[in-house]
Formats: sequence, structure tokens, C-alpha cells
Amino acid sequence: MAAVNLSDLKPEEFKEFLSSFDTVLTDCDGVLWIWAETISGSPQAINRLKEIGKKIFYVTNNSTKTREELFKKSQDMGFNSNKEEVVSTAYLAAKYLQDQGFKDKVYVVGSTGITQEMDMAGIKHTDIGPDPMPASLPQLISQKLDPEVKAVVVGFDEHFSYPKMLKAASYLARKDCIFVATNTDEQFPMNTDLIIPGTGSIVRAVETCGGRDAFVVGKPHSYISEFLVKTHKIDPSRTIMIGDRCNTDILLGKRCGFKTLLVLSGVSTLEEIKSWKESSDEELKKLVPDYYIGKLGDLTPLLE
Amino acid sequence: MAAVNLSDLKPEEFKEFLSSFDTVLTDCDGVLWIWAETISGSPQAINRLKEIGKKIFYVTNNSTKTREELFKKSQDMGFNSNKEEVVSTAYLAAKYLQDQGFKDKVYVVGSTGITQEMDMAGIKHTDIGPDPMPASLPQLISQKLDPEVKAVVVGFDEHFSYPKMLKAASYLARKDCIFVATNTDEQFPMNTDLIIPGTGSIVRAVETCGGRDAFVVGKPHSYISEFLVKTHKIDPSRTIMIGDRCNTDILLGKRCGFKTLLVLSGVSTLEEIKSWKESSDEELKKLVPDYYIGKLGDLTPLLE
Repeated sequence: MAAVNLSDLKPEEFKEFLSSFDTVLTDCDGVLWIWAETISGSPQAINRLKEIGKKIFYVTNNSTKTREELFKKSQDMGFNSNKEEVVSTAYLAAKYLQDQGFKDKVYVVGSTGITQEMDMAGIKHTDIGPDPMPASLPQLISQKLDPEVKAVVVGFDEHFSYPKMLKAASYLARKDCIFVATNTDEQFPMNTDLIIPGTGSIVRAVETCGGRDAFVVGKPHSYISEFLVKTHKIDPSRTIMIGDRCNTDILLGKRCGFKTLLVLSGVSTLEEIKSWKESSDEELKKLVPDYYIGKLGDLTPLLE
Repeated sequence: MAAVNLSDLKPEEFKEFLSSFDTVLTDCDGVLWIWAETISGSPQAINRLKEIGKKIFYVTNNSTKTREELFKKSQDMGFNSNKEEVVSTAYLAAKYLQDQGFKDKVYVVGSTGITQEMDMAGIKHTDIGPDPMPASLPQLISQKLDPEVKAVVVGFDEHFSYPKMLKAASYLARKDCIFVATNTDEQFPMNTDLIIPGTGSIVRAVETCGGRDAFVVGKPHSYISEFLVKTHKIDPSRTIMIGDRCNTDILLGKRCGFKTLLVLSGVSTLEEIKSWKESSDEELKKLVPDYYIGKLGDLTPLLE
């Protein structure tokens, strides 16, 4: 049984579905909101799930905001949330370095989301912001590297540049340098004809010149689940992952033993699901969610 | 027989080696020169090979210079070259678009090497140089795309930036948009502790956000050989490829049926060759050259 439309379930089947999990992990961009805009009905659905006793976690690959900022954003949009429920990749990157007993300095390709989480975790880091190309390559090469740097953290960085690539790759050549990426999303979901490159494009560039793969803390990599099990004692077999992107949200769920629910308000489409379902490629089959629904708000009437 | 040291051959074996090819394809960076510096002895070796009747081609993945500029550089360093012998990826990218009957405009991520070759081929293109991030993402998104663009060409660009990624990915989403990369070299060979990212890092970033793979005109992709066979009537079975980088130069040779000679003055090392030779991975075995020598200049005494 795969890719069942929740709206097609009979009342007793829906009740059974609802009692099959205690914990709800929900993605944010494309499920709860798109940039600054709430996806209508999502706060009501999440709040209702909390009222009937489900544990809620807001699990986002977005590295541009701190937990605190994401918590405030969710509050402003009417979600009945608390800060502990927010799990973001900037926070997880800092957490991962703490787990490793990291005491040196981090070279950050990213934004304030990452540097503020590093500050809160007491981890030293380089400055962020523009690092433009100087007048010539020899001038760039004459710039000094920071001798203290022993980790590179890559997240979303709209000021990504060739000098940043060169520095990241050069730090990565150091012995025992830790390499962490927040996530590998190729594009951002957005209501525009433009393609908005995601962190994944930046990570691939740094991995290529650095000649190494990053440790990724975001979905679909299992670190996020290990964190939730260890810190919040969730039971994967009684957990559902809600997302709009199959190669992050749904794949995470499949890898970690969660139930999976796709909402069609973001990146992945029903046409893709159908083609993956019929594919003979086992890797593509893993992207098929257990359930789907048009948008999260469509859950609310079913929950009454 | 693989990875034979040319310096170990007996005179009659060397004579046999020398008579096994008519055409010499030589890589440039790491074989003939490192940036502005000649690798000592290389001009004498190449000139001697030409004197004894070998056809010579200078085959470089470097996209930053035109054929004309590379020809002049080789002349200045004492190579007895002519312009027709120079095959560079900026030139090949323009050639490839001509082959396709391309009549629209190219969005260029690259430098003057590419735009000048496009000009000579009569192909319209966008401007190059810095395209820095504006004050905010909404401001970036409000920038207009060029309606005429129907191809994206990616080469080395020290001004690579997030806005360029966004534009390249957005053009690539257009129907029938051609996507060409000059090469996929991960790093530049350089006499410094720094890692100098190559075009490959930029190409991977654009491929990731564009959701498509580029057609690569440079080594190790076979277009360069198809071009030489078609335009210069070379016979692959009577051709040797000389290079310093196994995953471009040597792999090209293996794919196209050339003999292969590695020089140890650049990227690849004898230790790597040994480990690949002993590997059970067939893909790694393909990187093992037929022959190797310390540097190209070491050939000259053997040629007397």
C-alpha cells in the first residue's frame, strides 16, 4: 500500500491512520508556509493535531534562520508552537560540532542563521557576508587563511563566491578538518518562474573542489532522526513525517522507519509519484509516500 | 602492459614505442607550463617530436583563453606551434553551438576566452564579469531575464556568484535550452598550498540547481576527439595523449583508443597509479596510463 489519498479513506480507516502515530514531524517551507506567506489552513491542522495529543516537531532544512527566529515565525502565523519543537539545520550543525567535542574555529559559508547558532553553542567562527573577487587571482591567492580553522560548515549563502570556494577547499585540505553541510536541497520552492538555487548547489561546488563529501545534518540524512530519538525520545515506528519534497522529507521517513505523508502544496507532484510507483528502480520507489493530501489544511475537517 | 616508465625502455623498445604513433595530443597546464611558468625542457621535447615528423595538437581544458592567446603563449615559451594546432575548450564550445545551427543568444558563465571565441564564431552572448548579489533576494528576483537566451555555456569564472547560478538555472528551465560546459576539472594544478577550484566546481553547482547535466566539450569527454578526427583527420589508433591528470587526459585516451603517457609534473602521482592498478574497480583501472615519465623534458635525450 503506497500513495493513498487521505481524503479517500473511510472514517474508520482514517481513525486507524490517526492512531498509528504519536509524533508528527512537519517540514516547513512548502507545507506550512512559502517564504513569508502562510499556506492557508496549515496552522489549524497542526494545532488540532497537537490538541488531540500528538507531539509536534517543526523539522526544516532551511539554514538561514535560528531556532528562535523560526519559532517566532511559526507563532506569528498562528501555530501553537514552542521553541523546543523547532529543529532546524543551522541548530543541528552546531549540535553536531558539539557532539564531536569541537574546540577550534569554523569557516562558515552561510548566513546569520548559522553564525548565531554557533554563538549560542559557544563555537568560534569566521565572519559571513560578501567576499567578492579581488582585482586578480594572484591577489586572491595572497590572502591569508585563518590558522585556527578546523571545520567548514556550508549552508545557504546568497553571497557565495569564488573566493569562498577557494577558502573552503583550502581549509578542507587540512588534516582532520570537519566538513558539515546543512542540507542538499537543489532548489527552493517558490511562486515564481525563476529557479531559486538551494543550498545543495553550493554544497556540490564545495564538495567538488574540496574533493570530499560533506556530513549532511539535514533531511534526508538520518542525523536529524538520531537527534530526535536521543534528545526527545521519539519512537520512529510511531512517527509520521509530513513534507512536500520526496527526495528529502519522504526519503528521510523511509530511511528512518517513519510513516510518510506528502502534501501537494510544494515541490513534488502527483505525476512524479505515479511515475516512481511504476518504476522498476528501487531508489525511485523509495520516494513514494505512504499517504498524500492536497494541502495540510485539508486534514482539519477529517480531524473533527 | 600498463604504466611503463619510458626511461626504463631499452633503445629498441623506445624506437618501437616512437613508431607506434603519428599524432601527439599534449595537455598544456601541468605538462608544458604551470600558469605563466614553462616547465623546463617541455618546448625542446615537443619541438623535437615535431621535427621527427609527428603531428602535434595542444589540447587544453582551460577555458579562460582564446586559441589565439594560447598560440601566442606557446610561441612566447618557445614552442614551434601554429594556431591550427591549438584546441581549447572555449573554441570547442563555440564550435559545438555552430554544429547545432545555434542562432539565438548564449548566457555565459565564464571569461573573455569564451566571449571572444563566440564573437569570432558570430554567436550572440550576454556580458561577463561581476554580477554581485543585490541588497536582498526580492531585489534579485525582480531582475529581468533576457528573452533571447537559448543556451547556457559554463566555463571558468572567478566572478561566479549566486545571481549567476539563479540566472543559469532559470534559463536552463526554458524549453530546448542548450547546456554546454567547457570542462569538469575539479582543481587547477598550482605551486601553492591553496586549493584553486576549477571549472568543475562551477559546473556541478549549475547542474545541481538546473536539474540537468551539461554537454561537456573538454577532456575526458569524447567531443574533442570527434572534432580532431573530423577536422584534422587524425587516426586514433596512431595517436598518443600526453597529460598530467588521469581523470581527464588519460581517461580521454582510454575512451578514444589513443595511447597514453602520464607526466608526473602536475596533478596525478605515481602512488595513485599504483593503487588504481591494484584496484578491482574497473573504472579506476581505466585511469592507469600506458606509459609514464617524470616530466616531458625527460623525453628529449631519448629522442636523440
